[in-house]
Amino acid sequence: MKAYALGLDFGTASVRALLVRLADGAEVGRGVCPYAHGEGGVILDPAEPRLARQHPQDYLEGMQVAVREALAEAQRTEAEFAPEKVVGIGVDTTGSSPLAVDAGGEPLSEDPAALVWLWKDHTATPEAAEITRLARQERPHYIAKYGGTYSSEWYWAKLLRLVRQAPQIAQAAADWVEIQDWIPAVLTGKTDLIPRGVCAAGHKAFYHPDWGFPDEAFLEALHPELVRFRRRAASAPLGHAGQPAGVLQEAWARRLGLPGGIPVSYGAFDAHLGAVGAGVGPRTLVKILGTSTCDVMVAPLDQPLPDIPGLCGIVPEAVLPGHYSLEAGQSAVGDLFAWWTERVVGKEHSALSQEAEGLRPGESGLLALDWNNGNRTVLVDQELSGLLVGQSLYTRPAEVYRALLEATAFGARVIVERLEEYGVQVERVVVCGGIAGRNPLVLQIYADVLGRPLYLSRSSQTSALGAAVAGAVAAGAFPGFAQAQAAMTGLCPEVYRPRPEVAGIYNRLYRLYRDLHDAFGTPRALRLDHVMKELIHLREEVRR
Amino acid sequence: MKAYALGLDFGTASVRALLVRLADGAEVGRGVCPYAHGEGGVILDPAEPRLARQHPQDYLEGMQVAVREALAEAQRTEAEFAPEKVVGIGVDTTGSSPLAVDAGGEPLSEDPAALVWLWKDHTATPEAAEITRLARQERPHYIAKYGGTYSSEWYWAKLLRLVRQAPQIAQAAADWVEIQDWIPAVLTGKTDLIPRGVCAAGHKAFYHPDWGFPDEAFLEALHPELVRFRRRAASAPLGHAGQPAGVLQEAWARRLGLPGGIPVSYGAFDAHLGAVGAGVGPRTLVKILGTSTCDVMVAPLDQPLPDIPGLCGIVPEAVLPGHYSLEAGQSAVGDLFAWWTERVVGKEHSALSQEAEGLRPGESGLLALDWNNGNRTVLVDQELSGLLVGQSLYTRPAEVYRALLEATAFGARVIVERLEEYGVQVERVVVCGGIAGRNPLVLQIYADVLGRPLYLSRSSQTSALGAAVAGAVAAGAFPGFAQAQAAMTGLCPEVYRPRPEVAGIYNRLYRLYRDLHDAFGTPRALRLDHVMKELIHLREEVRR
Repeated sequence: MKAYALGLDFGTASVRALLVRLADGAEVGRGVCPYAHGEGGVILDPAEPRLARQHPQDYLEGMQVAVREALAEAQRTEAEFAPEKVVGIGVDTTGSSPLAVDAGGEPLSEDPAALVWLWKDHTATPEAAEITRLARQERPHYIAKYGGTYSSEWYWAKLLRLVRQAPQIAQAAADWVEIQDWIPAVLTGKTDLIPRGVCAAGHKAFYHPDWGFPDEAFLEALHPELVRFRRRAASAPLGHAGQPAGVLQEAWARRLGLPGGIPVSYGAFDAHLGAVGAGVGPRTLVKILGTSTCDVMVAPLDQPLPDIPGLCGIVPEAVLPGHYSLEAGQSAVGDLFAWWTERVVGKEHSALSQEAEGLRPGESGLLALDWNNGNRTVLVDQELSGLLVGQSLYTRPAEVYRALLEATAFGARVIVERLEEYGVQVERVVVCGGIAGRNPLVLQIYADVLGRPLYLSRSSQTSALGAAVAGAVAAGAFPGFAQAQAAMTGLCPEVYRPRPEVAGIYNRLYRLYRDLHDAFGTPRALRLDHVMKELIHLREEVRR
Repeated sequence: MKAYALGLDFGTASVRALLVRLADGAEVGRGVCPYAHGEGGVILDPAEPRLARQHPQDYLEGMQVAVREALAEAQRTEAEFAPEKVVGIGVDTTGSSPLAVDAGGEPLSEDPAALVWLWKDHTATPEAAEITRLARQERPHYIAKYGGTYSSEWYWAKLLRLVRQAPQIAQAAADWVEIQDWIPAVLTGKTDLIPRGVCAAGHKAFYHPDWGFPDEAFLEALHPELVRFRRRAASAPLGHAGQPAGVLQEAWARRLGLPGGIPVSYGAFDAHLGAVGAGVGPRTLVKILGTSTCDVMVAPLDQPLPDIPGLCGIVPEAVLPGHYSLEAGQSAVGDLFAWWTERVVGKEHSALSQEAEGLRPGESGLLALDWNNGNRTVLVDQELSGLLVGQSLYTRPAEVYRALLEATAFGARVIVERLEEYGVQVERVVVCGGIAGRNPLVLQIYADVLGRPLYLSRSSQTSALGAAVAGAVAAGAFPGFAQAQAAMTGLCPEVYRPRPEVAGIYNRLYRLYRDLHDAFGTPRALRLDHVMKELIHLREEVRR
């Protein structure tokens, strides 16, 4: 009998449902539903550009639409399919995206502070700095696993902000949960004491097998209110993706059009399950290119691994059993391109992309820093901003567009170089996510700038596929991830290879990018008087 | 009997004619004609963004249209007016904008190298660097008058480029003349040996009363061909605006609709005669705001004046008899705003301007360098480019527009501070030119950033008015400039005063501007890691 797994992928703008055949990874049913609230699903505040919230109801309503759509497609196109043949469910989400809930796991109110604090919400910047300071002094082993800096995007920084800025919401809250944990809890009915996934706990909340959640004295020094939330988290069940958090409860089974009792895996972040869906393994860097980028690698647990400065997290078994997971990321990628095309120029991507494709590297004389949303790796600093240099009076929108694409590729190269500097070899790059496959220009620029072959995940919905893999593993359909990945995932035949003829130009541009990166991002005093001149000389060389 | 003077103002995009009543400065007739060739009168080369040429025929044809239009208006609106009552003609032009001509003063061909090398043509950047190097070594007294650096915009740099890049044109040329000299020569028929104005010779071609034109050994070391052109220039008559170069010849009198024999003044640059039209005198800085900006001051000849590093020129009697003229400038002002609105955003100025006016200083978190066309003062470096920092994912076009306006104001402040550092006090600023009066937002920002009251010239065509003043003086209608200015020029009643409540914010932004200015424009190693953070903090303070 053919069997299927359901992957649920809660992204920044929409939720996707994917039904996958266990035997060969065929994607037999797909559904997608954009979130109803805000701009592209994100609730903003014009007076506070760092705020980004989501409405938790959007996940639940969107999930119903997406799952029913996927089931309908599967029933239409796959003769042998039936909802009863879905053996496991996996969930991935953005993160760190926490939410305050009451003792029954219900969201508290419509107050923006009681909504989901989306990953890219940076209102907790001062709180993150405070946590970083205290951890460096008092708990250096905590912060060493996060590259030396705690981010404003993360669990405890956002909670500290909440208890200070909206104390009435904090007091009404019984728990502060990642949506990665909240959604499986809703589906399985375990909302009284919400189970915790290792992925979010380890990568965002200072959890580590050596010490558990951060100790009460440390949290109390930040704010006494935090202790109560720590106790709640520490008392909850803990597991990782591929382990069942529970089974689908009847009320939700009816809403989704599935039978009850299906095992539901612990949740994990979209990047991590995306990496699973892309076939992550040692020496392969998986880049999930979307509104932002998450980079995931694994390294064997039985080999020594130093702490790597600036890396967002090094956590045992957050992705694959028997491996460390290493997480890095770029805070704005697709968002950066959309900002320029839609908000500034007011055109379609395709119009700029086509013209940008005709430009040679260096021809525009432009160079950008990709920090419009801060820098996640390796600077781990949200108080940074975009920068563009090299403009003449003839600079065209498509030239800036290409410079922004290149800036994100240079940002990706900083991450790869940091990994290799600390002994984690990157032999190839596998790309997946929203931008991958849709924009060949981006992919070729990344291959050229990284100087490594770029492979594409066969699935266009790698995170949802990875969630389905986790669901299948949680259901016991495979002995482990390796076997499930071998059966269910794969790469596209096409490969983007670095072009030797542009390597020299990109190396020169990258050195200038590093100069700007280090000048604006680190406390070093540097000369920059060569930057504009070299860009002009490069432009002239290329145009000749 | 009422008398009138005609001012002819050859700008970057068009020529203007202005008929002015000597008794009270009333502007009784106006005419304007855009140049026919190129984009907005400027001939470009997509393969060489530093190239900017003009067609000499455009001046002659445009002048006829503009003068006839001005005469028609005067005859229509001023009962007592008649062409016979025009007693003098003055000419101002952009510059340094030289042109190769044959022995009869005729342009050579349609080859771009044989057209006018417009002031903002920066193709001679390497040649300017070479002249700077040689002058610093061999003739430090030459280069000291130009702030230590010779510009790619100037006479000898462009000629050196011409003899190297288009030797056939250089060989066919008998003379290399500023259009400031060529146009009066055409009007007066003195095209066999074209008289030279002190303004261009002194401010752009190393002429100084102490040594005359630069010596032959110096020029020969650059290129032997230059010597021939030096001899031609040195043998020609030399004079300054307010002295007659000749009288209007009959053929041109018929074309213009004027009687022959009217005295025509020596030409001068638009900025310098603009300063005259704006009532320039000691302690008043006149800013001509147009596509670029020229800043002109005067200081009494009988008081010692040090060389001022980075100032474009300090020349005795180039503007007013008995005074040094001091020239500074910004390479892109109106051009910079037009680049953003038209070329990047594709909107009308008014749309962005209205939204930008509603923004408070610091609110956007943005900061720009105004160097898209290089930096004329105080860095004197064309191999610079634009820079924008502080972008978030929510940055809007109007915010960037305002940041560009502010950047030009900060650039203006650098100039004022340099003048005062060397003992030239700036008590008030008088603004004239294309942008003045049309954009109150720009004017208020300048007053706020400069911390000084900003006055507007009464005339909206101050350069043309100054040319008319020079024409009247050349005709002997007044004993000198002081009397002519007293009768013919004036200020608007409205004054833009610095607002104390924004001074602190602009001082903070200006310090950051200086940090970027010095980091990218000078060989100093500086820390810049505070820049993005301070902009973000300022943005938050202002929004609160």
